[in-house]
Amino acid sequence: MSVNPDLVRERSKCSFQPLELTHMLDGGEAKTLERKNTEDAFLSDPNFKDAIPTEYLSHKEKYEEAVRKACYLFKRFQEYTEEHGGGGMKQFAEILGGKLGSAILKDGSPITLHYVMFIPAIMGQGTPEQQAEWISRAWNCNIIGTYAQTELGHGTFIRGLETVAVYDEKTQEFVLNSPTLTAYKWWPGGLGHSANYAVVVAQMYTKGKCHGIQPFIVQLRDEETHMPMPGIKIGEIGSKMGLNSTNNGFLGFENVRIPRMHMLMKNAQVLENGTFIKAPNSKLTYGTMMFVRVVLIQEMVNYLSKAVTIATRYSAVRHQSQPKPNEPEPQILDYVTQQYKLIPNIATCFAFNFTAEWLWEYYNIVSSELEAGELDRLPELHAIACCLKAVCTADASAAVETCRLSCGGHGYMTSSNLPNTYSLTTAACTYEGENTVLLLQTARYLIKSWEQALNGAPLTPTVSYLGKYAKNEKYVWKSTIEGILRGFQEIAAKKIALCASNIAAHLKNGMSNEDAWNITSVQLVAAAEVHCRCFIIDKFNERMQVKAANLSPNLRKVLLLLLDLYVVYWTLKCSGDFLRFTNITGKHLDELQERLEVTLTKLRPEAVGIVDGFDIRDEILASPLGAFDGRVYERLMEEAMKSPLNAEPVNKSFHLYLKPLMRSQL
Amino acid sequence: MSVNPDLVRERSKCSFQPLELTHMLDGGEAKTLERKNTEDAFLSDPNFKDAIPTEYLSHKEKYEEAVRKACYLFKRFQEYTEEHGGGGMKQFAEILGGKLGSAILKDGSPITLHYVMFIPAIMGQGTPEQQAEWISRAWNCNIIGTYAQTELGHGTFIRGLETVAVYDEKTQEFVLNSPTLTAYKWWPGGLGHSANYAVVVAQMYTKGKCHGIQPFIVQLRDEETHMPMPGIKIGEIGSKMGLNSTNNGFLGFENVRIPRMHMLMKNAQVLENGTFIKAPNSKLTYGTMMFVRVVLIQEMVNYLSKAVTIATRYSAVRHQSQPKPNEPEPQILDYVTQQYKLIPNIATCFAFNFTAEWLWEYYNIVSSELEAGELDRLPELHAIACCLKAVCTADASAAVETCRLSCGGHGYMTSSNLPNTYSLTTAACTYEGENTVLLLQTARYLIKSWEQALNGAPLTPTVSYLGKYAKNEKYVWKSTIEGILRGFQEIAAKKIALCASNIAAHLKNGMSNEDAWNITSVQLVAAAEVHCRCFIIDKFNERMQVKAANLSPNLRKVLLLLLDLYVVYWTLKCSGDFLRFTNITGKHLDELQERLEVTLTKLRPEAVGIVDGFDIRDEILASPLGAFDGRVYERLMEEAMKSPLNAEPVNKSFHLYLKPLMRSQL
Repeated sequence: MSVNPDLVRERSKCSFQPLELTHMLDGGEAKTLERKNTEDAFLSDPNFKDAIPTEYLSHKEKYEEAVRKACYLFKRFQEYTEEHGGGGMKQFAEILGGKLGSAILKDGSPITLHYVMFIPAIMGQGTPEQQAEWISRAWNCNIIGTYAQTELGHGTFIRGLETVAVYDEKTQEFVLNSPTLTAYKWWPGGLGHSANYAVVVAQMYTKGKCHGIQPFIVQLRDEETHMPMPGIKIGEIGSKMGLNSTNNGFLGFENVRIPRMHMLMKNAQVLENGTFIKAPNSKLTYGTMMFVRVVLIQEMVNYLSKAVTIATRYSAVRHQSQPKPNEPEPQILDYVTQQYKLIPNIATCFAFNFTAEWLWEYYNIVSSELEAGELDRLPELHAIACCLKAVCTADASAAVETCRLSCGGHGYMTSSNLPNTYSLTTAACTYEGENTVLLLQTARYLIKSWEQALNGAPLTPTVSYLGKYAKNEKYVWKSTIEGILRGFQEIAAKKIALCASNIAAHLKNGMSNEDAWNITSVQLVAAAEVHCRCFIIDKFNERMQVKAANLSPNLRKVLLLLLDLYVVYWTLKCSGDFLRFTNITGKHLDELQERLEVTLTKLRPEAVGIVDGFDIRDEILASPLGAFDGRVYERLMEEAMKSPLNAEPVNKSFHLYLKPLMRSQL
Repeated sequence: MSVNPDLVRERSKCSFQPLELTHMLDGGEAKTLERKNTEDAFLSDPNFKDAIPTEYLSHKEKYEEAVRKACYLFKRFQEYTEEHGGGGMKQFAEILGGKLGSAILKDGSPITLHYVMFIPAIMGQGTPEQQAEWISRAWNCNIIGTYAQTELGHGTFIRGLETVAVYDEKTQEFVLNSPTLTAYKWWPGGLGHSANYAVVVAQMYTKGKCHGIQPFIVQLRDEETHMPMPGIKIGEIGSKMGLNSTNNGFLGFENVRIPRMHMLMKNAQVLENGTFIKAPNSKLTYGTMMFVRVVLIQEMVNYLSKAVTIATRYSAVRHQSQPKPNEPEPQILDYVTQQYKLIPNIATCFAFNFTAEWLWEYYNIVSSELEAGELDRLPELHAIACCLKAVCTADASAAVETCRLSCGGHGYMTSSNLPNTYSLTTAACTYEGENTVLLLQTARYLIKSWEQALNGAPLTPTVSYLGKYAKNEKYVWKSTIEGILRGFQEIAAKKIALCASNIAAHLKNGMSNEDAWNITSVQLVAAAEVHCRCFIIDKFNERMQVKAANLSPNLRKVLLLLLDLYVVYWTLKCSGDFLRFTNITGKHLDELQERLEVTLTKLRPEAVGIVDGFDIRDEILASPLGAFDGRVYERLMEEAMKSPLNAEPVNKSFHLYLKPLMRSQL
């Protein structure tokens, strides 16, 4: 198959071997091979191909097609893991979530929550007996479950949930009710028409007293007929901006009775006589929630890598304008404004990738400590995971959208896969904890840490830099990466200090704690964000330096340029903070601007090579703009021809409406 | 009908009469009445109601339903203007575009380009004879046309178009061809299956010589059968992020012959013998292009006003969290972070509205001068329209998306109408001139003006401020609106000056003009943007002061607070530029931050009143989150029940796929 000559030329100009980058990103040649084999096993399967692209189907047809694929995928996944071993939660997330899953079910799966939340909830919160009762049936897909927590009226604020489960000593049952419309469960994936069981989170009452939210296993539908069980009001919540195959549902309860032992009782318990036994530690259920946030950041890398690959290859194929008379139109990648839109976002993929790597490792350390009953590091993990989730999802969304816009009109085509990638990325700004709320949780940790720093108390590693600034250490500006990182830390520390002193001033004026916090919250969000940027730059720098050391000189040079670009880019973006809180000068900023421009120019010929190194298969990119062969225009036309409207030269609406209009004398 | 008690309370707390604001925005009580009557005439018509919300239909069904509504709408529009007078282009844009049109055809109309571009192109570029031949048939909708300019391979750079029209003296015909795949027309609205005529832009050759692009009337489809004419290859381009009812199409030519007199010859001409007569001035066709950009800014106000109305009302109804123990959950509008997301965007509606008003007036002045052959002010209008289009579409898109995200998960529902509003708003960043390209066009004007300023040459009004800074005048910082505006101007001037000196330095180092421009282009874009912000703040301030003077004291106070908020908000956003280029200090910034927080608190109780004053009918908002009665949750549930999937308790996919999966022993 012929490759677009512009891409051939780009590849010949690239200074390094993209395969070396691929191996580095996969974690070695063997892992690359393994990944490629898995991709091949699934993506070459004709059962996963769409006869007509799903965007042309009705909402209902989209759902039906998604159920077909998802069921087949579950079966194939089980077969595959039996052949190749594995099959744990992480592998499920890697194979069925991530890049591969998104290639098969482009707009989400109606039964993914079964593996991602239903089974983990039972494993994490069920007693050994409960696990024995439920896990094997769930694991074999004899039942399909979901996780029903969010309600129509409450999301991020879990304590406010309204669904009630009242223990009835006489029958030893819980009675579930939705006392109001806002108490209806709303959003759980697969809840609409797919799952027949759910873990339901409800306010638990026994002996007339509320003991807060507890998890319950509830049967939603008859296993034989799939009809809703008595008292269960259920359906889907309707069309969304994206994720239209996930079958998000609503769920109301009217005196639904379940046996006592359907409350998951690993932590808190209700005895037969209705006595409530508290969980030894309320933070024990924290782990699962954290897991999703940790995985999420890797998901952001997946989405963004796709978007930059598509936009970069397109920018090498697309030509526009004629700045120099008598010369051909340049590739749009030659325009520095275009490079500025793309290459910093390529660098972001690495920054987030390394940060996700660190977070995964740290999560595993804290998790195993948790198992051993040690909770010391949980607040720190929580604080850093909150801000990382918020900043990475927000940055990734903005970056994907920049990539989409950089492709001009063609980025607006559904077939470009950029609109869908954006819909999926931006969804993550809201689910699993709304970003502003999460940043304020980090801010709370930072304010507390700042007080500790002022008191000379020990600080956890992620905030240890605060110690230096609490002692008011002074620095001479240096535009090295380390110097800039120190500058970011200085900004974060001084912003946190400023928030603390503003809050103190409000308190002194008689404001309540809560009101003082609220009025300062815009500044607190900004402080938490810059703290997060410090952290990302720190991890990016740390890991890139180590990894680059083992690479061939040319690739090393390119990766270190990307690191430099990322750091300089964010310094210039935050120039107000730098001028305000560090002793950087305008002259330094001019130099950094020039450094940015020069770095972009140096990375320009490497751009296609880098995204080639991401090694994302065409089926995963799923975009005529981004395919490896660069046949952009041919593929756009091929995609257009798949529209069912193009199957007939004249649509019936001509005869029904247009012709009568044209024949009438208006 | 009962209104949500939170909204009742908000309305009772508001300090002014929203109706007074409505009258101000409409331009007087009589105009408000007229608008309301028009809205009522169209929106109460049952033929415009959807049986099933269109998001549940297949792509093809969406198209068919759109043609039905669009044809009926054309008829109603003609009847309405016959009854009520009017019927010009502007009125068409007002009634059928804008808020009203978007309520009827939420995702665009397949035949709007007939009025918006086909007829105007013939009127603007046809000779009187050509107008006589075509306009009345077009006006009566005996033919339906579109405007085919953009190609698969070329958009913003019009000179690069590839479609050719070669004059054949023997037959006195033009022969149209698409020499390559990239020459295919791509994007024109209604081109796919709706229009039967088009104005086609092509490179015109006569006597073997190319004379650049010229417009031609081409018949696309048989008037009787609607079958494509010989040599016409036509269809739709497929599904998009939005605008899925606009039937954007592709069009290829294979030796399509049209009579000589189908070239629109008001400007350039081709005589029977093939002699080419140049247009007296190539800029004469500029006017129509400008018209669309001018109208576009008002469209941005429409979209953003809808989004802030929806998000503000929702934020008054939604409750979350419990910062103070034993107190009820606050409305989310009580959180300062939420106010920060919404109220500056409410202010933006006013800023853009007044800027659009100015631009419309100025456009009319320049247009009438053009008619008289005076072209002096065209470059200035062009420069300011370019950056305003770019900044207003980019800001409006970001603002709409912020509003959507501020509604949490529910903002992700299609029924919220926020995703669709975003899709339509962001589209404007790309069409009618890509934003980065447009900002660079403004930058070119600014660099030229800066040179004039240095030479003491006269400056046009929109750049006259450059004169002061060319003379290096110094100012003491003042945090008044006038002081801040002067600061913005100082920044713009110094950024332009810095670009000019950077370009000069590159030239001195031997770089070509074009390369020096390119390497500086990131800075040039930033300079043009800040120039535009000066302008918007200037017009906002100028007009708001005048209008506010005639209002009741309470409303005046609120509007002046919005002005202040907008100016302070952007100062803080641009703090890096202020610290760098003006003599503002950190202490001033602290004061501005406090002023922002205090202003948000003052405007908090007025927020619902202000968006009530926008007076956008529920049918136009089309969002359960934003309806006047605030029955958010009831309406969300009603919308969900409209999903065809909810019409049956069990979907067939259970029997086909889910049950077999659950019964198999995996």
